[in-house]
Amino acid sequence: MSGESRFIDSLRALVTDPAARELLDDAAVLEVGSARLVLTHDIVAEGVHFLPGDPPGDVAWKLVAVNLSDLAAKGARPLGALLGYSLAADGEWNSAFVEGLRLALDGFGLKLLGGDTICLPEGAPRAFGLTAIGEASGPVPSRSGAKPGDHLWVSGTIGDAGAGLAVARGELHGAASLIERYRLPRPRLEAGQALAPLVSAMMDVSDGLLIDLARMAEASGVAAVIELDTVPLSEAYIAARGEEREARIAAATAGDDYELLFSADPAQAPAILAASDALGLPFSRIGHAFEGQGLRLTDRGGEVPLPTRLGYQHRSS
Amino acid sequence: MSGESRFIDSLRALVTDPAARELLDDAAVLEVGSARLVLTHDIVAEGVHFLPGDPPGDVAWKLVAVNLSDLAAKGARPLGALLGYSLAADGEWNSAFVEGLRLALDGFGLKLLGGDTICLPEGAPRAFGLTAIGEASGPVPSRSGAKPGDHLWVSGTIGDAGAGLAVARGELHGAASLIERYRLPRPRLEAGQALAPLVSAMMDVSDGLLIDLARMAEASGVAAVIELDTVPLSEAYIAARGEEREARIAAATAGDDYELLFSADPAQAPAILAASDALGLPFSRIGHAFEGQGLRLTDRGGEVPLPTRLGYQHRSS
Repeated sequence: MSGESRFIDSLRALVTDPAARELLDDAAVLEVGSARLVLTHDIVAEGVHFLPGDPPGDVAWKLVAVNLSDLAAKGARPLGALLGYSLAADGEWNSAFVEGLRLALDGFGLKLLGGDTICLPEGAPRAFGLTAIGEASGPVPSRSGAKPGDHLWVSGTIGDAGAGLAVARGELHGAASLIERYRLPRPRLEAGQALAPLVSAMMDVSDGLLIDLARMAEASGVAAVIELDTVPLSEAYIAARGEEREARIAAATAGDDYELLFSADPAQAPAILAASDALGLPFSRIGHAFEGQGLRLTDRGGEVPLPTRLGYQHRSS
Repeated sequence: MSGESRFIDSLRALVTDPAARELLDDAAVLEVGSARLVLTHDIVAEGVHFLPGDPPGDVAWKLVAVNLSDLAAKGARPLGALLGYSLAADGEWNSAFVEGLRLALDGFGLKLLGGDTICLPEGAPRAFGLTAIGEASGPVPSRSGAKPGDHLWVSGTIGDAGAGLAVARGELHGAASLIERYRLPRPRLEAGQALAPLVSAMMDVSDGLLIDLARMAEASGVAAVIELDTVPLSEAYIAARGEEREARIAAATAGDDYELLFSADPAQAPAILAASDALGLPFSRIGHAFEGQGLRLTDRGGEVPLPTRLGYQHRSS
């Protein structure tokens, strides 16, 4: 058990309210008066989530996007955000961050409400926290509601951001659209709101499809099988990496997709496909849940061993 | 203008919603459905707000207390908190922090709802962010509502925490109760809720009475006079530092009081004193607001020059 897991377990022992969802979900769900609030706080830190040379505007965008992706996975409409900013003595960097923040706030219709700014000691890595507050108009799906027999679905395409990072690093030839998926992820806010009443469980894919699905299956007390040949790949991804098994495993274990992963009763399939049409965003059936535990992979009907690495594990909650 | 002020001005340009109160208040005020939410986010960082050798449990307590003091100043009842934690590889430190967090959550009836944990790169200073969410049942006083003719009031006693820090450092002989005021501040949550309907402006005293009053006066577009001889001092403070002018100026420019500073129409004085009786917490009249701008000091009726340092200035919001 890592120090991080131990620490989070010790925090979990302090949690008494169901609103916290035992710190196991993407967000907290708090009822206040007639409002159902969805609350999340994610940190983006230099050397962990971004590199010192990354464009500051992209860091700001990502900070907003990763938090809004948590709201999207809970079907919430964003209301506002509080920013925790660590200020280093580099005015140009800070200005570029603010410009990226402006683009993200405008792009997602998010209001900046407040926060705190601290001056960093010299040489300390930058770290930025964002608290996003959203409101849900109906049920708020958890990670833990998947049932045996449910279909497993994913929105959009998988693996683009991982390929985009490789392209940006010069390790892969590929389209600029892949880099864009890595640099400027777009949380699926509208899709999340449309899907929330239809699903049994939902979360965002941030660390890799396989690892995030393993978490959903564990939280739900079910086993899951993924049919690799049904994992949706973009044309740009296929042009860069192909669509053979190895390319599909790479896509399913790459991080930063910020797509929605959800389970639903098979009877919901027509409504889910209708929502997909209405949104102009593909939802693909990629497998199903069944009695038991753990994750299985198939490819064109044949069993495939799980890769040793299912995704990124630096993220804790 | 400091880099920090410039940065906050650039953030202010992104703010479009009145809920943010132009980033000039202790907290944001967001109406959602029938609920009036009060939201604040404060960071406590090693080397800025605490020292590497400080007891980790006190750091946790202070993190909770500084955020709840912002809620107190807005008359809000705390609902819950999200924690942003930077984990260094020191299990004992982390355990002691969690124990202090437990005491603070229990002590203030605050629920831990969620958050994020990141693993720090080696050698990076610790920094912890807390977002506190509260609910107000009535009007939410701002910093900017003081009017000419209003009385200026402060809760409790002033200067104890500053003296406590000096005692803890061995620079002053004084009672353990002073150190306790510094180590374990108690935000005035009940007082804030009782006062909110009675005041024209309210904020917490975190950086020093004089600097915080100067901020209230500036935000309100009024001038303020403080009668130094009416600033409430504890017996422990007087025993350690005396009650002459120098001691009173030291009290009024020391930080970490976490008392409430408020302005009110003179007609509210009986209701304010009745609330004081009901709470068992003194509220003292220390001056008044008048037409103009700036801050003046008097002592036993005579004008006193302002000290060059009015308080701490590391805090931004």
